[in-house]
Amino acid sequence: MVKPISRISTEIDFEKNGKQVGHLAVPSSTNESAYGIVPIPITVIKNGKGPTMFMTGGVHGDEYEGPVALMKLAAKLTPAKIQGRVIILPAMNLPAVLAGQRCSPIDGLNMNRVFPGERNGSITLQIAHYVSNVLLPLTDYQFDFHSGGKTLEYIPTMIMNVSKDKKREKRTTEALKAFGLPIGLVDVKSDHGGLFEMECEERGILSTNAELGGAGRVDVQTLAWTEIGMMNLLKFFGLMDGKIVTPESQGRPAPRLMEVNDPRSNSFAPDTGLYEHFVDLGANVKAGQTIGQVHFPGNWEKKPWPVKARRAGLMVLKRPPGRVERGDVVAQIAQDWKG
Amino acid sequence: MVKPISRISTEIDFEKNGKQVGHLAVPSSTNESAYGIVPIPITVIKNGKGPTMFMTGGVHGDEYEGPVALMKLAAKLTPAKIQGRVIILPAMNLPAVLAGQRCSPIDGLNMNRVFPGERNGSITLQIAHYVSNVLLPLTDYQFDFHSGGKTLEYIPTMIMNVSKDKKREKRTTEALKAFGLPIGLVDVKSDHGGLFEMECEERGILSTNAELGGAGRVDVQTLAWTEIGMMNLLKFFGLMDGKIVTPESQGRPAPRLMEVNDPRSNSFAPDTGLYEHFVDLGANVKAGQTIGQVHFPGNWEKKPWPVKARRAGLMVLKRPPGRVERGDVVAQIAQDWKG
Amino acid sequence: MVKPISRISTEIDFEKNGKQVGHLAVPSSTNESAYGIVPIPITVIKNGKGPTMFMTGGVHGDEYEGPVALMKLAAKLTPAKIQGRVIILPAMNLPAVLAGQRCSPIDGLNMNRVFPGERNGSITLQIAHYVSNVLLPLTDYQFDFHSGGKTLEYIPTMIMNVSKDKKREKRTTEALKAFGLPIGLVDVKSDHGGLFEMECEERGILSTNAELGGAGRVDVQTLAWTEIGMMNLLKFFGLMDGKIVTPESQGRPAPRLMEVNDPRSNSFAPDTGLYEHFVDLGANVKAGQTIGQVHFPGNWEKKPWPVKARRAGLMVLKRPPGRVERGDVVAQIAQDWKG
Amino acid sequence: MVKPISRISTEIDFEKNGKQVGHLAVPSSTNESAYGIVPIPITVIKNGKGPTMFMTGGVHGDEYEGPVALMKLAAKLTPAKIQGRVIILPAMNLPAVLAGQRCSPIDGLNMNRVFPGERNGSITLQIAHYVSNVLLPLTDYQFDFHSGGKTLEYIPTMIMNVSKDKKREKRTTEALKAFGLPIGLVDVKSDHGGLFEMECEERGILSTNAELGGAGRVDVQTLAWTEIGMMNLLKFFGLMDGKIVTPESQGRPAPRLMEVNDPRSNSFAPDTGLYEHFVDLGANVKAGQTIGQVHFPGNWEKKPWPVKARRAGLMVLKRPPGRVERGDVVAQIAQDWKG
Amino acid sequence: MVKPISRISTEIDFEKNGKQVGHLAVPSSTNESAYGIVPIPITVIKNGKGPTMFMTGGVHGDEYEGPVALMKLAAKLTPAKIQGRVIILPAMNLPAVLAGQRCSPIDGLNMNRVFPGERNGSITLQIAHYVSNVLLPLTDYQFDFHSGGKTLEYIPTMIMNVSKDKKREKRTTEALKAFGLPIGLVDVKSDHGGLFEMECEERGILSTNAELGGAGRVDVQTLAWTEIGMMNLLKFFGLMDGKIVTPESQGRPAPRLMEVNDPRSNSFAPDTGLYEHFVDLGANVKAGQTIGQVHFPGNWEKKPWPVKARRAGLMVLKRPPGRVERGDVVAQIAQDWKG
Amino acid sequence: MVKPISRISTEIDFEKNGKQVGHLAVPSSTNESAYGIVPIPITVIKNGKGPTMFMTGGVHGDEYEGPVALMKLAAKLTPAKIQGRVIILPAMNLPAVLAGQRCSPIDGLNMNRVFPGERNGSITLQIAHYVSNVLLPLTDYQFDFHSGGKTLEYIPTMIMNVSKDKKREKRTTEALKAFGLPIGLVDVKSDHGGLFEMECEERGILSTNAELGGAGRVDVQTLAWTEIGMMNLLKFFGLMDGKIVTPESQGRPAPRLMEVNDPRSNSFAPDTGLYEHFVDLGANVKAGQTIGQVHFPGNWEKKPWPVKARRAGLMVLKRPPGRVERGDVVAQIAQDWKG
Repeated sequence: MVKPISRISTEIDFEKNGKQVGHLAVPSSTNESAYGIVPIPITVIKNGKGPTMFMTGGVHGDEYEGPVALMKLAAKLTPAKIQGRVIILPAMNLPAVLAGQRCSPIDGLNMNRVFPGERNGSITLQIAHYVSNVLLPLTDYQFDFHSGGKTLEYIPTMIMNVSKDKKREKRTTEALKAFGLPIGLVDVKSDHGGLFEMECEERGILSTNAELGGAGRVDVQTLAWTEIGMMNLLKFFGLMDGKIVTPESQGRPAPRLMEVNDPRSNSFAPDTGLYEHFVDLGANVKAGQTIGQVHFPGNWEKKPWPVKARRAGLMVLKRPPGRVERGDVVAQIAQDWKG
Repeated sequence: MVKPISRISTEIDFEKNGKQVGHLAVPSSTNESAYGIVPIPITVIKNGKGPTMFMTGGVHGDEYEGPVALMKLAAKLTPAKIQGRVIILPAMNLPAVLAGQRCSPIDGLNMNRVFPGERNGSITLQIAHYVSNVLLPLTDYQFDFHSGGKTLEYIPTMIMNVSKDKKREKRTTEALKAFGLPIGLVDVKSDHGGLFEMECEERGILSTNAELGGAGRVDVQTLAWTEIGMMNLLKFFGLMDGKIVTPESQGRPAPRLMEVNDPRSNSFAPDTGLYEHFVDLGANVKAGQTIGQVHFPGNWEKKPWPVKARRAGLMVLKRPPGRVERGDVVAQIAQDWKG
Repeated sequence: MVKPISRISTEIDFEKNGKQVGHLAVPSSTNESAYGIVPIPITVIKNGKGPTMFMTGGVHGDEYEGPVALMKLAAKLTPAKIQGRVIILPAMNLPAVLAGQRCSPIDGLNMNRVFPGERNGSITLQIAHYVSNVLLPLTDYQFDFHSGGKTLEYIPTMIMNVSKDKKREKRTTEALKAFGLPIGLVDVKSDHGGLFEMECEERGILSTNAELGGAGRVDVQTLAWTEIGMMNLLKFFGLMDGKIVTPESQGRPAPRLMEVNDPRSNSFAPDTGLYEHFVDLGANVKAGQTIGQVHFPGNWEKKPWPVKARRAGLMVLKRPPGRVERGDVVAQIAQDWKG
Repeated sequence: MVKPISRISTEIDFEKNGKQVGHLAVPSSTNESAYGIVPIPITVIKNGKGPTMFMTGGVHGDEYEGPVALMKLAAKLTPAKIQGRVIILPAMNLPAVLAGQRCSPIDGLNMNRVFPGERNGSITLQIAHYVSNVLLPLTDYQFDFHSGGKTLEYIPTMIMNVSKDKKREKRTTEALKAFGLPIGLVDVKSDHGGLFEMECEERGILSTNAELGGAGRVDVQTLAWTEIGMMNLLKFFGLMDGKIVTPESQGRPAPRLMEVNDPRSNSFAPDTGLYEHFVDLGANVKAGQTIGQVHFPGNWEKKPWPVKARRAGLMVLKRPPGRVERGDVVAQIAQDWKG
Repeated sequence: MVKPISRISTEIDFEKNGKQVGHLAVPSSTNESAYGIVPIPITVIKNGKGPTMFMTGGVHGDEYEGPVALMKLAAKLTPAKIQGRVIILPAMNLPAVLAGQRCSPIDGLNMNRVFPGERNGSITLQIAHYVSNVLLPLTDYQFDFHSGGKTLEYIPTMIMNVSKDKKREKRTTEALKAFGLPIGLVDVKSDHGGLFEMECEERGILSTNAELGGAGRVDVQTLAWTEIGMMNLLKFFGLMDGKIVTPESQGRPAPRLMEVNDPRSNSFAPDTGLYEHFVDLGANVKAGQTIGQVHFPGNWEKKPWPVKARRAGLMVLKRPPGRVERGDVVAQIAQDWKG
Repeated sequence: MVKPISRISTEIDFEKNGKQVGHLAVPSSTNESAYGIVPIPITVIKNGKGPTMFMTGGVHGDEYEGPVALMKLAAKLTPAKIQGRVIILPAMNLPAVLAGQRCSPIDGLNMNRVFPGERNGSITLQIAHYVSNVLLPLTDYQFDFHSGGKTLEYIPTMIMNVSKDKKREKRTTEALKAFGLPIGLVDVKSDHGGLFEMECEERGILSTNAELGGAGRVDVQTLAWTEIGMMNLLKFFGLMDGKIVTPESQGRPAPRLMEVNDPRSNSFAPDTGLYEHFVDLGANVKAGQTIGQVHFPGNWEKKPWPVKARRAGLMVLKRPPGRVERGDVVAQIAQDWKG
């Protein structure tokens, strides 16, 4: 027999027209179950010729907005409504999603640091390998829906990377604008870093990475924007008919392109304690401004330790949990993208 | 030697004028430290005659607003500024505060279910016993600062209990209004329940229980309101001179007295999954209205399970975490207090 | 307000005719959910006057035969089929059942050592208290369905206790025979021991305790016998019409009354290692006979350590797991009950 | 100095005549012991010229039949009784055997997914590497004794693989028949999969993989068959004189050659709950037949979820534990091997 | 049947002459073993009339000197050598001893804080209850062998309590001197505290509490002194013939009576970090002298925090582990007992 | 952008004159903190031209003497005092140091088995990679300060390796003597083994590995010797003026060169139990001499198991913890180095 590309199998036929709801069967042999699978949910909707849009969520298990919006989208879409193919993985790291934590409870791995994965590795590695080697070759446009998770909160943001392929970069910028979240961050990365988006970049696939909010919640407003944005993408890339519903038509500004490529964009907690923000998401801060302080309930004789912004800009990201440890990012300050 | 009231000792002299910053020494003998103490931070400020206000936070370790506001208050107050005595325990359950979790990591207990504690019990029980038997006898007014913690979020609220002593109940209502949070909840309880507030009630001590927000955060706005409210209380009870800063003077409405005594005020998650709120805190909902639904990423073939409000009213409390288990309260609907 | 008997509430009305499916709401406030309940499933079927039979399972969470048979019975019974009242708690210690372990994962308690429970105790204690103080006062006949769980395996057995009330003891014996399992064990206990059955005995309620098999399985044959037995009980006590289906009519012998009151009935593992049985359930052994041995894979130079029967009789119970620790019961040898 | 093949050392001399009982010293440096070894028990019996039979157990730590039978064999064999060499590793993954769990408690690895191991890897990888690179080069015939472990139960079975070397495949089939278990499964594998047996296959070594029963027990009957089978193998390959004791001579049928190469041989649990088998090991089932159902004690309003056989055949494997999670194999249906 | 004093049983007959080696059978029903016992080792040696000496070790599981010396003593003593009765429990909290930790791994309890125990409590409580209610009534002289355990180190010390019974106190002092360790500490306690020694005091039984060293070791020198001391005690109380081997005859000084009743005897770690002692056990320090400092490897910008002696005296106790947390005792300073 | 050598960044400029105190920022993305760093403390002191000495501690987190001495040295040194460059990493595996355990609590790895690390690996691997690829290329002399940690205790020792470069080996011997600890061990290793010292050897960098004591303590005497030794090294290599303070000038002997290259140098615990040493560090033992025994408190019927020295020599290393498991090294016997 021929050795298959992956140890993961599925009954889905990616070339078949119609709507298929099933799972990727990741082989698993553990103390609790000697023979078994971890089933990763997948929906494929195909109607004739056309591009393939691959939409993913749950790469981190505590980022719930993407999985919820994608499950709703998967339930709503029908072959008749689209032209081309839509592949939806709403919970790519299902064990982490079920546990409600960033990293897999099975092998402890952060899925978005291990791309392109390993064929014979642990479960998280096998899934990343399957996505990279079976699904990405089918893909024209990849949209991965993240959010801040339990320990971060973003102004709803879509992140894209500068690319050697300037034409693709331009198209990505347009797609980001069509999606319509308040902020667009343009990243300049020097390292693959095991990131899903960089794997797409290396393979020449248009991709973005949404940061839909976070704090471990499913925010009513952000979810509404996301559901509109997903439909906008399908229209933008021609998989669906209809007019894009712009932010402006919803009474809010168009996406603002910004960047956080300067390492001083991040402010860190200087010690373990309780963090008090002085300003909130959306504040404009000055370089050197004190933006919060750490209190020490276990060493109550010590004064609070102030934290400063290291450059001027807009606070686009904060750490919601009151408890911090040294080294945690407590805020991220963005500046307008000069391109 | 005479057997002392408690195994807990302190170098604080509660009758001394001036400001003392120290700790309660709770004896502890564990695998990690055979001889030692758990030190509970305490600040006492006293100036001559006058009532004793006892302010507490950190009864639950993931409710950070109270500890932060109380540490700031303890640092700011001086004997010269007050008349009477202020006792501040910003982190009554210090081990839980340091761990950032509701219950004590040492004995697993929820401190607000074990009052009046036990002299010879585990650490949480000993602290509750000391508070009940050493500090409450010194106290005229008790204010315990809670919030929703990691798994709940309130519109900032102060809770009081109806009392057999109608005069004290009236005074409590006035104090609640002086504190100035948006909502005041009036509880009718049939059970002591191990609650700190019911221990105060039984001992005839005026007390309230603030719910400052929650979601495991320290919210900028709520903290500002809380710091103003604490000063208002000191003025209201005559420990400090000056005029109360009313909500109206800050451009927001006076506290609204409401209640959640009907068990149908609570809506519960019907199964384990990801919860999507349809409406947010502050929404007015109808009885029977669908206010959210549970999604099942691990059983993606199942439709979402709708959750309904069981009576009409204002949504004053929600569960922020996207992940829910059967039996979790996802929303609380309040109605105006008819007295 | 009047302080209720229990902190547990339910929407079930035990006096109402008809079939009600609901839950007991045990209040729960944990790190993962500040406000919430643990819901214990309950079914009540009532039709006019008649005795109340109370059937329970899942007191230990790894004894699955009872919960499965009771869930099937609860689904099948209708008011029209019975006369009187049937109360079914298929998973009395639901958290343990969901975890698949003997003791509660919440408070670590073995529910069958803590009766009659405590009103204000931890979750397991509260459930035991509710059962003792709310449900037992409604009960005429109590049947608690245990099995060996993960670490024991019984020849299917029903256990009864000798009673001061010889009339009730006689009736219990008849009920045990009507149920129709191969073995009936008659226990002479000197200690309440926190056992559910002893709480029934103290309250003068007829009760037995079935041991349906075990090894952490749901055996096809045993389950069939159990489902027949449950119908037999309803007929025996007049809650249902129809003829008892005796073991003899199924081609197997009537229950054999035996006892294990001599402490030497138990044989213990003498050291930690892998246990090899020399004889199986149902074997007749002699006093002093070597019935197994412990092997030491970590100390391979040591010879296996033999284990002997300490008296003659029938092996009615064995420990299935190959791994043993010193002090584990590996076998129980029964003798015929002389009454 | 010359870098040795492995970091593992032993005082055993594999070329020496006689019987040696010792251990493989796997270097280990942990929090609990900075300098130390994990000792893997080994027995080598050699008498002059002749083939080398290498017999192993305890690759998974909860499969106890193999270790028990091999420890008894190692104690019983003497150089005088054999011609050639017998190498016995009764507990190849000793830390897992001592813990009684499938995977290593030290590095979490499933040893039978990591062959041929890594010289400088974690402990499980080092052992697999030593076996592959030191012991397999000495080996003519390899027999690895597995069983179902805690979460599976087999009709006693011996598994072999089809091979490119048809002569070896034929010899393996004869050895399997000589061993004499009820079932022989013939596997067609497309992937090395880190399996010990595939490592043997790649190296051209005759090997099989016994599945002696399971459910975490040591079954009296299966153990007896195994001990006879081991002697039969020694006779079959000429290491020992004497006549093979066939199953037929024990009054039971000869091994039946079957296969489970169709992925539909496996039936999976569709959700988390309690599993009720409708049929038992040895049953003949039809394609589409309902063979069991999942009950939901935590969601008692839901009906049980039926599980079907996906093809016709003999049920050779079942999951014994009553508690299941989605994706667990609950049954395996075999068909006769057509060759 | 009569309800027995304890749920614990034993086959030992305390009134029988001769030497009996056996165990106390503590009933245990856990997830890992539904029916079983925890066996607590006991040796009883009796020869005719005479007093009963009860010697215990392993009340804390990480204090190894006592268990080792007592196991050696139990092996060595014979009825012929003594007059009276010696009861030896070398590992009273066996589960803690096997785990090598202070508190029981089963119920988390510190046995020396729970006397006189509870008949129906968890395992540690049951053992304390049995000792208090079955063994202490048999006892004339009780000697409990502690040491510092993993987190403390003593100059070898014997501790006694002042007593209302001055005659017994005087006899205890003489016994302490006969035992012959370098230091004798005389405690004045105001609280029972759940201590074994205070339970003896309340029952009018002569008792001491040795602190043989600690740091989680078995020190060669201290063990030798202990073994001599145990023989001295048997001679002192007339259970054995022979002359007491005094410290002076071994070339070391007689025990020095000291005390640590002033709370300022203890110096505490002021924060979490690495502790550097400036002086060692046996040093004479002045009040206010800096005796060590805490270093902060995680906050390397901070200066070390000095720790001072709070009164003058001899350092008899130190904390050996380099890692400390706020509240840990790092040193104890003793002063000569003024009586 | 150019892909950097490491994912770790720092604001330290290694070429700048002066004293810089900062950290290496190891990127970290975990369940508790999605964006953050693990900060590894570093101090660099540079003054003009001259060699680079690189001094490290905390490779194992429970070896506290090195971190304490290095933090004190880093605080004390100033550019004016030296000529050349000193790089100090007092807590190379900071997460392990903060946890007080040998291996990293984040990825479980023993840092001294994974050199030269991996650029994209887990945190411990990234640090080892940075040290190997960024810091070692800057280094002339490397001194790594270990000790026995919690589970070993050494007579203070410095370890060096024989080298192909005999000139460097000779210089290393002189440096070892200049440092001045009682013992010098000369190792002959056949395997890189992932050791930091072997990575230095491969790169041609002079290095030693000190073993400063251990038992999880910070010993007063050993720390004093270490602080003197560190100054001696700076003088020996010309980074500092002044005369070496020899052991002889402190009234103790010069370092004694010994070796433990024979595998029989180690004696192992033969079973799990409590270990009693018969001799202490510094004892001269004979081959075959019984140096201790294992007691079995859980199997009190068994006699203690004696442990023998396997060759003659000086006991330079012992295991302090009383609890042992099979395979633990309990003692190491050294012989004089014959060169």
